[in-house]
Amino acid sequence: MATDHNTILTESIKRLLRRGATTHLAKIVNKAHAADLSLVFRTLTLANQRKLFSVIKDVEQKGNLFSALEEKVLLDFIDSMRIDDIVAVMENMPSDDVADLLGKIPQKKADAILELMETEDSEEVEGLLSYGDETAGGIMIPDFIALREDMTSKAAIESIQKNYHDVEMPFYIYVVDENSKLLGVISLRQLVVEKPDTQLRDFMTTDIFSVRTDTDQEEVARIVARYDILAVPVIDETQRLVGIVTVDDVIDIIRAEATEDMLKMAGAGEVFVETQSVIRSTRIRLPWLFASCMGGIFAFFIISHFESSLEKLAYLAAFIPVIMGMGGNIGTQSSTIVVRGLATGRLHIKDLWKVVSKELSIGLILGVVYGLFIAVVAQARFYDTQSSGAFAISVGLAVLCSMSVAALVGSFVPMIMARINIDPAVATGPFVTTSIDIASVYFYFIIATTLIGV
Amino acid sequence: MATDHNTILTESIKRLLRRGATTHLAKIVNKAHAADLSLVFRTLTLANQRKLFSVIKDVEQKGNLFSALEEKVLLDFIDSMRIDDIVAVMENMPSDDVADLLGKIPQKKADAILELMETEDSEEVEGLLSYGDETAGGIMIPDFIALREDMTSKAAIESIQKNYHDVEMPFYIYVVDENSKLLGVISLRQLVVEKPDTQLRDFMTTDIFSVRTDTDQEEVARIVARYDILAVPVIDETQRLVGIVTVDDVIDIIRAEATEDMLKMAGAGEVFVETQSVIRSTRIRLPWLFASCMGGIFAFFIISHFESSLEKLAYLAAFIPVIMGMGGNIGTQSSTIVVRGLATGRLHIKDLWKVVSKELSIGLILGVVYGLFIAVVAQARFYDTQSSGAFAISVGLAVLCSMSVAALVGSFVPMIMARINIDPAVATGPFVTTSIDIASVYFYFIIATTLIGV
Repeated sequence: MATDHNTILTESIKRLLRRGATTHLAKIVNKAHAADLSLVFRTLTLANQRKLFSVIKDVEQKGNLFSALEEKVLLDFIDSMRIDDIVAVMENMPSDDVADLLGKIPQKKADAILELMETEDSEEVEGLLSYGDETAGGIMIPDFIALREDMTSKAAIESIQKNYHDVEMPFYIYVVDENSKLLGVISLRQLVVEKPDTQLRDFMTTDIFSVRTDTDQEEVARIVARYDILAVPVIDETQRLVGIVTVDDVIDIIRAEATEDMLKMAGAGEVFVETQSVIRSTRIRLPWLFASCMGGIFAFFIISHFESSLEKLAYLAAFIPVIMGMGGNIGTQSSTIVVRGLATGRLHIKDLWKVVSKELSIGLILGVVYGLFIAVVAQARFYDTQSSGAFAISVGLAVLCSMSVAALVGSFVPMIMARINIDPAVATGPFVTTSIDIASVYFYFIIATTLIGV
Repeated sequence: MATDHNTILTESIKRLLRRGATTHLAKIVNKAHAADLSLVFRTLTLANQRKLFSVIKDVEQKGNLFSALEEKVLLDFIDSMRIDDIVAVMENMPSDDVADLLGKIPQKKADAILELMETEDSEEVEGLLSYGDETAGGIMIPDFIALREDMTSKAAIESIQKNYHDVEMPFYIYVVDENSKLLGVISLRQLVVEKPDTQLRDFMTTDIFSVRTDTDQEEVARIVARYDILAVPVIDETQRLVGIVTVDDVIDIIRAEATEDMLKMAGAGEVFVETQSVIRSTRIRLPWLFASCMGGIFAFFIISHFESSLEKLAYLAAFIPVIMGMGGNIGTQSSTIVVRGLATGRLHIKDLWKVVSKELSIGLILGVVYGLFIAVVAQARFYDTQSSGAFAISVGLAVLCSMSVAALVGSFVPMIMARINIDPAVATGPFVTTSIDIASVYFYFIIATTLIGV
């Protein structure tokens, strides 16, 4: 539905741009949702992007569009804008988005922009810039409702009407003491149904989830997801409430982290590249393939080493694919389960041995099943040749070895990486696959030449 | 933080269960959040689960625990419960969770439970059961605030205080006409700041996102994520408002869909299995490996076919791993990008040729780069042997072929699958990898035997 709707919007806007029908274009653009406009925007040439942007009347809508744009598209566009125009738009964006953006443009330009912004806004942004990009501090927004614990519910409603007009997510009212220390939380609904003269401290919930400014964003996402809350308060080292992370940002984190993990495991970079140019995509994917290339060349040297055996027994080569394939596939299963399990919190790094021994058991069971099966195939095919029995046993054993080692490596490597704080997804993809390939080939030839004696 | 906190909780509860310290256990359990309890619960034996459950005082907390439990854990536990006890708990669960659960237990038992539930509750649940599991109808909750358009804001606040005490997510107030047709939306905050005698129709937002009962849940998730809304209203074919899908359920969908896609692509089932037994996990993973096994055996027959060439030129075999590996890895890159792009809405099935030709271009470029590199390695290694030039060229060409075919297949298959409405993630994993393996080996031997003439 939304997709069709976007296709129609994109096509209408492109047609109007071609025809130069500015009035009609303005009508459509100013009615559209910024999230939809952002999808149109990224398909346009820079010249057309500028035209579209210029017909947006409301500067707040310009800010929404900036917030909705993909990073790369936005950075390219900003590059073409005058600095005052950028500042005007940025003053209408949530300060967490501004901080994000400023963190990504050249320092000099970012400083110039901060200088030109209103003091209040720029202070907020500078505060956010001081936290790590992927921490609660880096993704929080500094506007929230915080009221003192001795306020009555009537006074609280009045204060919200008067002072908190532009709070983005006014669903929770945080209760604080005179030092801004977080004491409890009240929902807007509770406030509406409570008797007017009750003090906030008398009906606030004190059992409250909060995160620290330096909490990793993935951890923040897990908390919001687990406890089904709409926003989580962020406190600094003195327990002062300094911001909130809202559920809409958490959704973005959850999607982006899943995408990132999938791409990393496939060795295809971190950021979704399909919207980028062929050259750029190629450049991102090239280095990851290098690991696999080096692994392949290494396997080549191993096999070369057994050249004389191969000369005597050419059909040894014919089982290389199945042995590599079975190892590779079970290794991918294990590492995917572990990487995803760690990311979603279903597996914990302290369970290292439990997880690895379970994967190893599965690898052994499946290795026996498929080892037997493939040995039977080998025996059936070569029953009439010399040493066919030893050959079938070698192939079966090689499958068993390859699959159990693959399950072991595929689960152990990401668990260990997570323990030493290296992203398990990055370390897992091509490296694990490649080492499993090498190990499989090596075991196979060692086992076969020993048992068959060639 | 949350994880440490859960480890401590789990260990305390286990210790108290061992010691039979019921009073202390009750104190801890009744203070814990249901989401945390659910994590403890799944690590306990059935007997201990029953003990823990029995000390929960508040039946609403029992309902929350049920909602938070993983499906398999819950189903096993329910199996051990008396039917009246199940009904008592279910009456305290959101009706969408009840409908979900009833859809998964034996029909007879589900009917018996529905019969025993209060009429109002069971009608709600039966209504939900009539929609597909993975549609907006199947995941919506039927409690929301709907007020008539001619109500004043003062009357609206009073009505909310009186009639909508137990609405789970009271953040949007939907405005409807006399036939329950959805007209607009108002936020609770707007209502609080509006003058008391303004009618709702005068300040409601009419530009409203809604989905139909039969909209796929992934589409619902995309809308909620794209437009940063906390709930999306669900309408039936007559535009009547029948429920809402809330952002907390959307988060669960986004996470579950990403997990599902990753597992499917790795050929490791659909549902996260690490918490299941070794035997169960093995059974889920076994069939997926069969595809790869058959592919390997197929590759075996291809190579056997070239046995005489291998006898003459044993080192042909040594390049099998690198050629398979390069093809396999670029194929995984392409299919991951396409599957994830389709899932997140960044790629659209109508862009089939654009996407495939881009991937093919990347495959060709990378194929030339790595083909040359590997050919140079082959030449360097075998420069002193007969027909080393032809051999190096064969290896290089095989890498080029394998990589471009892999990029083509890896992008084409998931795009086509999505077009004909087959889940691209399922179709992509082991099948694409296996066919790429077979194709790589085949091309290699055809090219090599032709060029070298063995």
